[in-house]
Amino acid sequence: MPNPLTDSDIIIAGEVNQRVMSRGLDALLRPKSVAVVGASANPSKISNVMLRNLAAGDFRIIPVNPKEKEILGFECFPSISSVPGGVDLAIIVLPAESAVRAAEECVAKGVGVVVITSSGFAENGPAGKDLQARLESLFNGSGTRLLGPNTMGVFAPGNRLDTLLIPAEKSPRPPPGRVALVSQSGAVAIAFLEKAEAFDMGVSVCVCIGNKADIEEIELLERFSDDEGTDCISMYLESFSDGRRFLEAARRASARKPVVILKSGRSGAGARAATSHTGALAASSDTLVEGALRQAGVVRVYDEEELVDVSRALAYLDHAKGDRVCVVASAGGFGVIATDYVESLDHGFGLRMAELSEETRRRLASVMPTFSSVRNPVDLTAEVTDEMYDKVLEALQADPGIDCIMMSLELQPPNVTKGLIEVAARRRAAGSTPIVVSAFGGDDTRAILAGLEKSKVPSYPTIRRAVRAVAALVERGHYLERQK
Amino acid sequence: MPNPLTDSDIIIAGEVNQRVMSRGLDALLRPKSVAVVGASANPSKISNVMLRNLAAGDFRIIPVNPKEKEILGFECFPSISSVPGGVDLAIIVLPAESAVRAAEECVAKGVGVVVITSSGFAENGPAGKDLQARLESLFNGSGTRLLGPNTMGVFAPGNRLDTLLIPAEKSPRPPPGRVALVSQSGAVAIAFLEKAEAFDMGVSVCVCIGNKADIEEIELLERFSDDEGTDCISMYLESFSDGRRFLEAARRASARKPVVILKSGRSGAGARAATSHTGALAASSDTLVEGALRQAGVVRVYDEEELVDVSRALAYLDHAKGDRVCVVASAGGFGVIATDYVESLDHGFGLRMAELSEETRRRLASVMPTFSSVRNPVDLTAEVTDEMYDKVLEALQADPGIDCIMMSLELQPPNVTKGLIEVAARRRAAGSTPIVVSAFGGDDTRAILAGLEKSKVPSYPTIRRAVRAVAALVERGHYLERQK
Repeated sequence: MPNPLTDSDIIIAGEVNQRVMSRGLDALLRPKSVAVVGASANPSKISNVMLRNLAAGDFRIIPVNPKEKEILGFECFPSISSVPGGVDLAIIVLPAESAVRAAEECVAKGVGVVVITSSGFAENGPAGKDLQARLESLFNGSGTRLLGPNTMGVFAPGNRLDTLLIPAEKSPRPPPGRVALVSQSGAVAIAFLEKAEAFDMGVSVCVCIGNKADIEEIELLERFSDDEGTDCISMYLESFSDGRRFLEAARRASARKPVVILKSGRSGAGARAATSHTGALAASSDTLVEGALRQAGVVRVYDEEELVDVSRALAYLDHAKGDRVCVVASAGGFGVIATDYVESLDHGFGLRMAELSEETRRRLASVMPTFSSVRNPVDLTAEVTDEMYDKVLEALQADPGIDCIMMSLELQPPNVTKGLIEVAARRRAAGSTPIVVSAFGGDDTRAILAGLEKSKVPSYPTIRRAVRAVAALVERGHYLERQK
Repeated sequence: MPNPLTDSDIIIAGEVNQRVMSRGLDALLRPKSVAVVGASANPSKISNVMLRNLAAGDFRIIPVNPKEKEILGFECFPSISSVPGGVDLAIIVLPAESAVRAAEECVAKGVGVVVITSSGFAENGPAGKDLQARLESLFNGSGTRLLGPNTMGVFAPGNRLDTLLIPAEKSPRPPPGRVALVSQSGAVAIAFLEKAEAFDMGVSVCVCIGNKADIEEIELLERFSDDEGTDCISMYLESFSDGRRFLEAARRASARKPVVILKSGRSGAGARAATSHTGALAASSDTLVEGALRQAGVVRVYDEEELVDVSRALAYLDHAKGDRVCVVASAGGFGVIATDYVESLDHGFGLRMAELSEETRRRLASVMPTFSSVRNPVDLTAEVTDEMYDKVLEALQADPGIDCIMMSLELQPPNVTKGLIEVAARRRAAGSTPIVVSAFGGDDTRAILAGLEKSKVPSYPTIRRAVRAVAALVERGHYLERQK
């Protein structure tokens, strides 16, 4: 009997699965007690870094080390079983073999979630695969969940939970916010968080799934899809634990909020490299992956910077209702380059330049310098002022033929000031047509850009990146339109 | 008689032309006296900004303004004809009509080069076209050359010549160096210079050609091709003054040094926008442009950031002898993403991952942590040290099967220090296999990256940009190979 399951069967199976699987995630994301097994008193050790990163959290902190009485002022216990009371989250920072023994003890104690940071498991040849199988059998049927092994763990700035292995002074962390990240690589997660911080983009939670022996991307995707504190789900994946279930989960999540995925291992050599990195099994063909993700409503990106750029736009702004873009520049050259990126298919995004209505042309002509052209791209020239931006954006947002506005903001014009932040924030609040900014410049520019970010007007330091963000808003709009 | 010219005729015509046309460029690039016509004593005026920017130069500075006796301590003259002695360079900062009258006076005095910054010429409809035609007829047959109109002029940090209209405190300038820029847009030039400064990339000279009524890109391309102080010629163009002559010049220049071009107006709407920006006439088809540029050895780029990124790699490093790339990462995830960018044609650069020789594998295995994989991408894991990088790079540079090395440098590994700068500089000097770096991180990383740049090891903040730079080195190598 081919394909005995109907679509609704799959969905029901998924929902049951979700309820079963989600047990324990609260202990990972909102623990009341956090143990570090293998905690060291030596400040240069990773486990000590982790304790320092955790120290600000409002949960009980429990270092475990048979040789110490206390570390960083926290009472230290010789073993996890000797800890009085329950433990929600235990992070094991020990070499692979010892980590398995410690995990066994955690399971026996009934710890909520165990995180194993060490490598040397499925990514490490036959012996590692055996060790991971032993580990998995420990957790099977137990009430304890496992994150990893081979993972940096979890970062949840809202409750100051930070198990990342890098000191915050070496790698700046973003503030609490509304983008969730699931990453199969700790380093990619760190890069994401640093780039998010640079743009002041807040993060609700970041989970590094590593070898995903138990907790994997599907369960987390479902969890963040339901999470009211998350507006956009971003993922770095090298493999899918279960392609069909993943696509179902992505389809359900996409109907509620944007899902952005960087899926690597696209090339033959890349897929082989992914196998040796996290023991990932390669998908059969990247063309299939691309099509399936698109059908599920996922916005696919290709590098770590694009993951942050696109997430920021989708988390901050409504989708675009169509693909007609209006470019507003203060420097003609950037208007031309932006137009190329809007329209071109090769080195561009295949969108359309909007045709301005007669009414819009009339309104623009009344505020613009006489010698500038009332066309799209709109060239406001270096004579542009904050007030002119206000009136031009208002006119463009009133034009039903424009689905998205890209402002190429060269901040050298002498009459553009920090007042522009207020203008952009007001226009963002007033109109439904989304506005994306590209800008460059010295310290003055950076101050204005930081202000724009605070007002949730996403800005980008190059034309290409800004038009890429516009294209993501258009793609999201197309997807939602198709679902109607 | 179809095509009466042979190839060598064209070259000879080009050479004669070059000798004739190059008269005056010295007065533009190395003036002994610089007049600012329309100089204002008001510090908020553009002409005053320009005087301040010029004040550091070791040439005579001559403000011209009938209402002032002196400005910023420089003696002021009522008109250009009343200035005693010769004037190499006169920058006219007056509205279009007045600028034409002042230009007439400059021609009468025998000024070397006149720069007209104002817009309102060929880019501004029929009336502007007429005005530009009047301007051109003034210079025709005279000994005086014209840069512009509608231009920001020239920046030559070696002799502190800076006519750009933006204060240096608003837009940081790069140091003297070996990349020349020719730009048809002042704003794109400013963006280029700012991004160059951010990476400490030096510039030999930057000329903004604006409406290019006289001095245009071909003459400057020929000039910088001959210039021993320039290792790479970078251009932003919206149009070609003469496509055939340009390609001839590009072919001759490419044989001597890399030529990188951002040519906008690629799309239909982009080409129309270029016409209203600098009065540019659109090329017939961008596919033709793309093929012709490639055949002439030009490395084409598509945005302002890529223009700086690729110029930096080509100016600093030898070309790659083939397309076999070795990726060295300290974080597996980035090794996978880099591999995808190396190999993929879609969202990638269609290069090859090098096959490591037996000898190389043996040498790598002796220095690497046992659990890491001796494959390409090479995963050094977070245990990597400066010394390990040294030995690994040495082994890879000795492998004749590797044409280019990309180091993905995640600087969180605790044992990577500033010593890496010295390692990279030594490996750069010792081996002919070029090394390109991608890196991210906090302040520590930025300090190390700045040191790498000083050692002419180009580094990039994302994987994509680093592999793009590698692809440019490969493209340059292929071109030179074809010329043999």
